[in-house]
Amino acid sequence: LKLLVVNCNISSAVTEVIVHNAELAARPGTEIIGLKPTWGPESAEGFFESFVSAAAVLDAISTYEGPFDAVVMAGYGEHGREGARQLLEQPVVDITEASAQLACLVAHRFGVATTLTTTIAGIKDSLAIAGLADRCVGVLATDVPVGGIADDEAETVDALASVGAALMMLGADAIVLGCAGFAGLDRMLEARLGVPVFDSVTSAVVVAEALVSLGKRTSKSGPYAAPTRDKEWVGWPVSSGRLVARDEGLGANRP
Amino acid sequence: LKLLVVNCNISSAVTEVIVHNAELAARPGTEIIGLKPTWGPESAEGFFESFVSAAAVLDAISTYEGPFDAVVMAGYGEHGREGARQLLEQPVVDITEASAQLACLVAHRFGVATTLTTTIAGIKDSLAIAGLADRCVGVLATDVPVGGIADDEAETVDALASVGAALMMLGADAIVLGCAGFAGLDRMLEARLGVPVFDSVTSAVVVAEALVSLGKRTSKSGPYAAPTRDKEWVGWPVSSGRLVARDEGLGANRP
Amino acid sequence: LKLLVVNCNISSAVTEVIVHNAELAARPGTEIIGLKPTWGPESAEGFFESFVSAAAVLDAISTYEGPFDAVVMAGYGEHGREGARQLLEQPVVDITEASAQLACLVAHRFGVATTLTTTIAGIKDSLAIAGLADRCVGVLATDVPVGGIADDEAETVDALASVGAALMMLGADAIVLGCAGFAGLDRMLEARLGVPVFDSVTSAVVVAEALVSLGKRTSKSGPYAAPTRDKEWVGWPVSSGRLVARDEGLGANRP
Amino acid sequence: LKLLVVNCNISSAVTEVIVHNAELAARPGTEIIGLKPTWGPESAEGFFESFVSAAAVLDAISTYEGPFDAVVMAGYGEHGREGARQLLEQPVVDITEASAQLACLVAHRFGVATTLTTTIAGIKDSLAIAGLADRCVGVLATDVPVGGIADDEAETVDALASVGAALMMLGADAIVLGCAGFAGLDRMLEARLGVPVFDSVTSAVVVAEALVSLGKRTSKSGPYAAPTRDKEWVGWPVSSGRLVARDEGLGANRP
Amino acid sequence: LKLLVVNCNISSAVTEVIVHNAELAARPGTEIIGLKPTWGPESAEGFFESFVSAAAVLDAISTYEGPFDAVVMAGYGEHGREGARQLLEQPVVDITEASAQLACLVAHRFGVATTLTTTIAGIKDSLAIAGLADRCVGVLATDVPVGGIADDEAETVDALASVGAALMMLGADAIVLGCAGFAGLDRMLEARLGVPVFDSVTSAVVVAEALVSLGKRTSKSGPYAAPTRDKEWVGWPVSSGRLVARDEGLGANRP
Amino acid sequence: LKLLVVNCNISSAVTEVIVHNAELAARPGTEIIGLKPTWGPESAEGFFESFVSAAAVLDAISTYEGPFDAVVMAGYGEHGREGARQLLEQPVVDITEASAQLACLVAHRFGVATTLTTTIAGIKDSLAIAGLADRCVGVLATDVPVGGIADDEAETVDALASVGAALMMLGADAIVLGCAGFAGLDRMLEARLGVPVFDSVTSAVVVAEALVSLGKRTSKSGPYAAPTRDKEWVGWPVSSGRLVARDEGLGANRP
Repeated sequence: LKLLVVNCNISSAVTEVIVHNAELAARPGTEIIGLKPTWGPESAEGFFESFVSAAAVLDAISTYEGPFDAVVMAGYGEHGREGARQLLEQPVVDITEASAQLACLVAHRFGVATTLTTTIAGIKDSLAIAGLADRCVGVLATDVPVGGIADDEAETVDALASVGAALMMLGADAIVLGCAGFAGLDRMLEARLGVPVFDSVTSAVVVAEALVSLGKRTSKSGPYAAPTRDKEWVGWPVSSGRLVARDEGLGANRP
Repeated sequence: LKLLVVNCNISSAVTEVIVHNAELAARPGTEIIGLKPTWGPESAEGFFESFVSAAAVLDAISTYEGPFDAVVMAGYGEHGREGARQLLEQPVVDITEASAQLACLVAHRFGVATTLTTTIAGIKDSLAIAGLADRCVGVLATDVPVGGIADDEAETVDALASVGAALMMLGADAIVLGCAGFAGLDRMLEARLGVPVFDSVTSAVVVAEALVSLGKRTSKSGPYAAPTRDKEWVGWPVSSGRLVARDEGLGANRP
Repeated sequence: LKLLVVNCNISSAVTEVIVHNAELAARPGTEIIGLKPTWGPESAEGFFESFVSAAAVLDAISTYEGPFDAVVMAGYGEHGREGARQLLEQPVVDITEASAQLACLVAHRFGVATTLTTTIAGIKDSLAIAGLADRCVGVLATDVPVGGIADDEAETVDALASVGAALMMLGADAIVLGCAGFAGLDRMLEARLGVPVFDSVTSAVVVAEALVSLGKRTSKSGPYAAPTRDKEWVGWPVSSGRLVARDEGLGANRP
Repeated sequence: LKLLVVNCNISSAVTEVIVHNAELAARPGTEIIGLKPTWGPESAEGFFESFVSAAAVLDAISTYEGPFDAVVMAGYGEHGREGARQLLEQPVVDITEASAQLACLVAHRFGVATTLTTTIAGIKDSLAIAGLADRCVGVLATDVPVGGIADDEAETVDALASVGAALMMLGADAIVLGCAGFAGLDRMLEARLGVPVFDSVTSAVVVAEALVSLGKRTSKSGPYAAPTRDKEWVGWPVSSGRLVARDEGLGANRP
Repeated sequence: LKLLVVNCNISSAVTEVIVHNAELAARPGTEIIGLKPTWGPESAEGFFESFVSAAAVLDAISTYEGPFDAVVMAGYGEHGREGARQLLEQPVVDITEASAQLACLVAHRFGVATTLTTTIAGIKDSLAIAGLADRCVGVLATDVPVGGIADDEAETVDALASVGAALMMLGADAIVLGCAGFAGLDRMLEARLGVPVFDSVTSAVVVAEALVSLGKRTSKSGPYAAPTRDKEWVGWPVSSGRLVARDEGLGANRP
Repeated sequence: LKLLVVNCNISSAVTEVIVHNAELAARPGTEIIGLKPTWGPESAEGFFESFVSAAAVLDAISTYEGPFDAVVMAGYGEHGREGARQLLEQPVVDITEASAQLACLVAHRFGVATTLTTTIAGIKDSLAIAGLADRCVGVLATDVPVGGIADDEAETVDALASVGAALMMLGADAIVLGCAGFAGLDRMLEARLGVPVFDSVTSAVVVAEALVSLGKRTSKSGPYAAPTRDKEWVGWPVSSGRLVARDEGLGANRP
């Protein structure tokens, strides 16, 4: 069983954390294949970066040539999920959805502890579109940026514990860690907070394994039907490097 | 890994179907322990039977003495889910929730094909309380009662295919089979309908395995905290047979 | 006019409070018939106890042999309401629904003051399923258990007044007392808080009288249609004492 | 017990139907006092007429000098309800709210059969603002105008039965008659449709009696607090006839 | 292009403020025609006054004889909007709707700073009915009455700034000034708060100009179809002064 | 006043239609600056294409060097809107939002007539995230692809008229044309359907003019605050052509 675990940014460090924790969570026999976009920002912390990341992730997925059984989209609250489902027949498990789903099975209400306040609006939109907002008591930020999570793990855990406690006062009896980069910190936080804490990446890994073991594939009869193949595209996939530069004329962006 | 799979009715035949299919879906090494209530109706097909079943299932769970790692509550749309979560520290996976969650990962909208029209209102309530109604296009009945599912499998599949097609016209691109007794029919329906079809029991089995492999337990800091132990109870658990009959005085039900 | 007022627990003391206050609220000519389950917990303060109580209440209702014109279900926020509606042709007035309805006629928003925090989730679910959550600003707990309400009435009223004031700060301009055991305390709280305060039991009594005077009966054309009669049941009604003990073989709960 | 039953239009015929049926529904000892506005349209069948009626009804209520214990606002789906609650300390029972509330106690879902399609949007708004839309499956029109209800009662009942049947196909297991002028037709429709049918006026009468018997009054601590008395008004109440005509100068409606 | 800007109260001072600011916001070539009711209260600050104002505004609009291209309804959160749309073929732009719409284009969430707490419930209802509540984080009051806005402008701006800051803490990144009388204060508040601040009147003026320039007219195929002309009315329009006084017999308001 | 009108695809023909109609709708003195992405698909008709377009549009906007006062995002139902708001201080008017807003001012409910069924889910998500779904009765497809709109205008208008009529039967009293490529067809459809029909592009143009004339700018205090500038990016903006090809090493997309 091969899981393609796709980071949403170009950071090798974050990708390594994700892959490492995915491997720890996976069953024996599951191979974790890490993938990251070849272009875009080093972290997605807001709408603009999220939309660019979405395209870069779709590029990475559509140009990946090896075999795989399911995709884990490892950008918490990031865009692109539904696009990947259109591209693929294999299941696409978004870490935002999978972690919220599992939390709802062992708790009455969950809260999300994330990185920066700039990500909150996008996370709420993502949960709402996924139909998973009803049992979420709130999304709060630690003010730890993606790039700073690993700088001082104790400090990061402290910040998550504070935010987790605040979410519990809002009614949460489980916490979801709202960034792929938080992978590996759930156990420490469970010890601190006394409630189930869900890492989003490992949640998605075990859910993806579950879907594959049932033999389920992405539906192709609705909005996830494959895109038409006979459409003209320019400069896509971006990673192919075939994009014609602006001064060669294509960039004449006035009609 | 031991999964306690609890049928919601006293039917041995339905319990056998559930256990058999749970075993087919489970990983090597997962032991399926079938359990059914010792009292109540032979099937739960409406609010009254559902509420009685809920208590009988809670009785069965609370008096089961063997070890287990998670519970699968195998009554589709039936009551009692939150009560079991209060009783146990192990994860309690409701087949209604788990199947809807998985369907949402491979389809944009799902529909539920169930047995009798009398069950529809309870199923909708169950999905709504679980926060999973947003992506459900509808719940439709086949008019096949629980007890009649196995009588003529071809006829049952035909009825499910008709209802599935109707749900697709309402916008579903995945179908959930809304009765534990439909276990084992999903593949045939996928071939007929061309969309992912989820059996609720096997969905819950693989999700329960996923939760156990992550080491998650039911939250005890909110409404699922264990009930107080020092409360007076009469005639409970019912299955203990210790209930004093009405004519012995306890039944003096006028204050 | 005979009203069957059904407590949800086995406590004679609580049943007496309920019946006494129901009698005070009833019109001349209305007879209050108190009923309580013959089995179950002495109070329902959370999901598990609520589900057991639901079955025990349905048992009590279905085995009650005298005539009555309507039922008042006197368990605030407890389960079973829809089951009783299936069983009966007479109106079934849930104290949770009736008190919220009346509050909405004399106030813009109401809040619920209840007993323990463990009951809050179930109360919210009950209001949501009844379609009455929109005008509820919140449900807060006094930390007075059902069994302690009568211990020190002044203390109970103090606790309710504190919670009532908190609910008013959340926007409530009426308070609903969220436990049948609070019956009789509404006037004192009105004097303290200066807003309408609704006791749930007496609310349901006058609403039941209203329904009966209109001659309305429970609809039998939808999900409240009577359960099928030709279904096999075991050990039901529990109160009949006919349950075969586990060691007689029925308890062989493995298929 | 004196109930002020306020028709929303100037039609004596409709007021008589309302009063007659209110009297039939009221308890012995309840006096029905009919009231109608002295200005406005002969029927309110759309937003414009509804807003004018609202002011005319508030005029009639605020200038009524006799004693009363509660008001029944007998304009189905019409505006003004919250204004009357501000004006009065007595309970104000809107027929739209009361009938929906009672229907929800004996049925799982209700539908509204009204007069003209032009009234549907306002009725839906009224139910939504009252927090009672969740259990309403729809509002459908008979195309019988208010003024034509009494012309041919058999035809009116036929039209209501057709619309009622359509609402049942949408999932209603109770019907609310969505016009005060339909008062008296509920029994005939129950016989035709086999489900509970609620006349809105009689529903409000019995609910008003219930509220009065509990001694509840309109909350004055929130948005229903009495309007400030020291504000300048011109031409109000309209019914006093003191309005200065436009050509006397007040009508200089350009600043 | 002629815009009929209709104040909801009889205050000349408020009308002047509205007209003055409308003129400042309008394009060259747009003529602002101020209109105010000839009867009703000097300010609408709660449900009762709002419903009377609604009828008085509809009276003013329906009796205005000059030509105009669109109406701006300049009562924030007041009733009557849908009635005016029935009366007219020209677009009717409610300041509550227009300002919320524009705020949603430059901010993620908005909050409303209004006058008295008594207006809050009506404003929320107005936004909800208009389908614009989802992105509103709250409505808070400054405790500055309509009649006191101009008394000490610095104090009013201070109060609005305090409330604006509170709304920003609730998540608003834009503020709407929730009273027509606040017209002209938006720039000062933008300087104080650092977020876009919308005056409701000028928002509606530019939106009305936009609608007119597109040539759009109010739909007459749904609930805004013109009222039937052949209906009997009494005492309407009120401003005509033709109302027969009560003692002339029409006021016999008992049927 | 300069409006940057950004098509979401690379089609010059569609861009020309958009610019032409924007110019017809704009006030004298407004300059329309057409812009289209230099990469991506020739039309966005589903989730995958929409996400790629979003990034390509953000690229085009961020690299456009001329001055402008507001942006019109001319991709109906497409992603990227919130990203553009983060990038810019000028107002960003999405054609999906603007047309729905204007429709709500002249009609009670609107419906959307779009191109292919594959676009429906994305359009609904876009309206929901914008808080504009409450008054939308539905989104229906004509089965005319973006690229085929201009092939036979009469046929396109016929298809839109059929879909418009279906939406009216669902309760719409205004229609929104759900594709930028439909620009220019609204008048013909108004004549056919007898209800207001909104072209999304021209709606956005006049709304953008309105916002600019008020002097409003995008809020920078919430989730639309400008992205951090000191973050590492690779291969962005894509249109700069500086992307290193995969075989130069950057494409080593395994961590």
